[in-house]
Amino acid sequence: MSEPQRVVVLAHEKFPDRAKTATGVLKYADYDVVAVLDRDNPGTSAADHRRDLPDVPIVSSMADAPEADALLVGIAPIGGGFDETWRDDVRTALERECDIIAGLHYFLTDDEEFAALAAEHGCEINDVRKPHDDIGVAQGNSADVDAEVVLTVGTDCSVGKMTATLELVEAAREQGIDAGFIPTGQTGIMISGWGNPVDRVVSDFTAGSVEEMILEKGDEYDVLFVEGQGSITHPAYSAVTCGLLHGSMADKLILCHESTREAIHGYEEFALPSISEYVSLYETLAEPVHEAEVVAGALNTSHVDDDEEAAAAVESFADELGAPAVDPVRFDATDLIDEVF
Amino acid sequence: MSEPQRVVVLAHEKFPDRAKTATGVLKYADYDVVAVLDRDNPGTSAADHRRDLPDVPIVSSMADAPEADALLVGIAPIGGGFDETWRDDVRTALERECDIIAGLHYFLTDDEEFAALAAEHGCEINDVRKPHDDIGVAQGNSADVDAEVVLTVGTDCSVGKMTATLELVEAAREQGIDAGFIPTGQTGIMISGWGNPVDRVVSDFTAGSVEEMILEKGDEYDVLFVEGQGSITHPAYSAVTCGLLHGSMADKLILCHESTREAIHGYEEFALPSISEYVSLYETLAEPVHEAEVVAGALNTSHVDDDEEAAAAVESFADELGAPAVDPVRFDATDLIDEVF
Repeated sequence: MSEPQRVVVLAHEKFPDRAKTATGVLKYADYDVVAVLDRDNPGTSAADHRRDLPDVPIVSSMADAPEADALLVGIAPIGGGFDETWRDDVRTALERECDIIAGLHYFLTDDEEFAALAAEHGCEINDVRKPHDDIGVAQGNSADVDAEVVLTVGTDCSVGKMTATLELVEAAREQGIDAGFIPTGQTGIMISGWGNPVDRVVSDFTAGSVEEMILEKGDEYDVLFVEGQGSITHPAYSAVTCGLLHGSMADKLILCHESTREAIHGYEEFALPSISEYVSLYETLAEPVHEAEVVAGALNTSHVDDDEEAAAAVESFADELGAPAVDPVRFDATDLIDEVF
Repeated sequence: MSEPQRVVVLAHEKFPDRAKTATGVLKYADYDVVAVLDRDNPGTSAADHRRDLPDVPIVSSMADAPEADALLVGIAPIGGGFDETWRDDVRTALERECDIIAGLHYFLTDDEEFAALAAEHGCEINDVRKPHDDIGVAQGNSADVDAEVVLTVGTDCSVGKMTATLELVEAAREQGIDAGFIPTGQTGIMISGWGNPVDRVVSDFTAGSVEEMILEKGDEYDVLFVEGQGSITHPAYSAVTCGLLHGSMADKLILCHESTREAIHGYEEFALPSISEYVSLYETLAEPVHEAEVVAGALNTSHVDDDEEAAAAVESFADELGAPAVDPVRFDATDLIDEVF
């Protein structure tokens, strides 16, 4: 993915609460987001909708957007298809010589109209969910890099692993630690401008796809924070979690949890084990490949309104964990960084 | 894969010891293998080379082969490419109106000459390693089928999981149990004529690809034996193993081991944990999704010449396991079936 400077983010009708990629990019990307496309909210600002978002104007369509280098598709319908109501915006962007960045299951590079327009206007279309061809089998070498490797692991999907990872990288850097981020999912890749979509590679290459990234970046940083995926107890996605755990050969694990979650999201008949069982499961499974310790926890308290109640939830989570914990979005993560690194 | 009746198996220069697919098909497939192609050994019989193989003639090329419905590629070079010295045989087979069955990473359906010949002669080319398009995310439903689900799990790759699974299916049927086989790898798929290549699907669909098969066959049999893959302690392939464990929602596990193996094959710096650690690891990891018990072991003693020594190895394996064990190739597996089912 080439490095864009000024990006327009498409998030029609789903901004901000069902636009995880758009809000992730707004909060964490290094490049400038110059506008959000949301035909439901033109004339407002991202900051009007959620206090943790920057003051970026919302416009109705790409035709109304300011000067930019790239259009990024910041939402995904169920199934990951392309919504035909977005076609005008993508077309206009290409005509304005903007690159396109998308993380859909439907690859925009395979769309004849878009491919022709991109060729005509000299633009690049980047489907970040399309794994590159050289990804292969892991060699078991991730532990050889100079950096200490830290992996976020979860009690479930959608508990805030990517956000926690990014917040910890930021807090570590504030504390003077030379910290790098290893993106493994579409939003992380869009924020960082590079990365392998670990959940989309051939299953035999799951560990290999993260190992490749660690070998690439491992000697450039003192600590690498690897974005985790899924959960080792997830009925559908545990394979990816296991491949990340063994492929990253992590030294330290951060257990991520959402404070009100009691069962696997969307698979409600599968109750979550206790926090201490998660700790034991992740550590025991890691050990034959590379010894790892759960050194801290990140609790997502976004469903708790009251700050004191949230703080109490974090404290009780830390007790169950037997390690320091924080909600790195709601509270300050620098103390945790000091304790752990 | 359409059901062939009379099959020619290509195994040039690698028969029998480096032709795992060819020998697997010779031993376990329901269809007739009418010839083996091996330009190093024309005029001999498969049985001349290994006493457990049937009396099937070996010929130099497809031109010398008897009447057949299909040519099956029974070997794979490192990397899974197509060896151009096989082209004449595949061409001749298509001209003789034989279907082609292959499990290479290189898909023969994408080969222009073969595709044209297949169309001209009305033949089918079946790349068993190409996953079908409908494979998706697991729903967590495998436990709903009537059949009891039994999964072979391993201490490593290449310890004999597929062979053990097939031998147990055979022994179970001999004991009057209505047993089915769920193939998950290329050789198993070629032997059975159907199946999903679990190690080649999109990583997010690993569990889903085995669940799909269990839901399809689970009400037709009393017991389903699922072919395992890899090992939960393998630095490269554990993701597939984990997806199979959770996706199959197995009730019973059979731990497979090769009696002389001490470290991960090809990853010698990774020592194998103890047998009791494997038992605990597989059971603990299964539990949050579906409780499973290691009820038996299958020990591959093919590297031990002496029968008494092999029997002693099996006995000591059973002790470590705390469950009955057998080498189902060398010894009779029916006693074990009686004990476990």
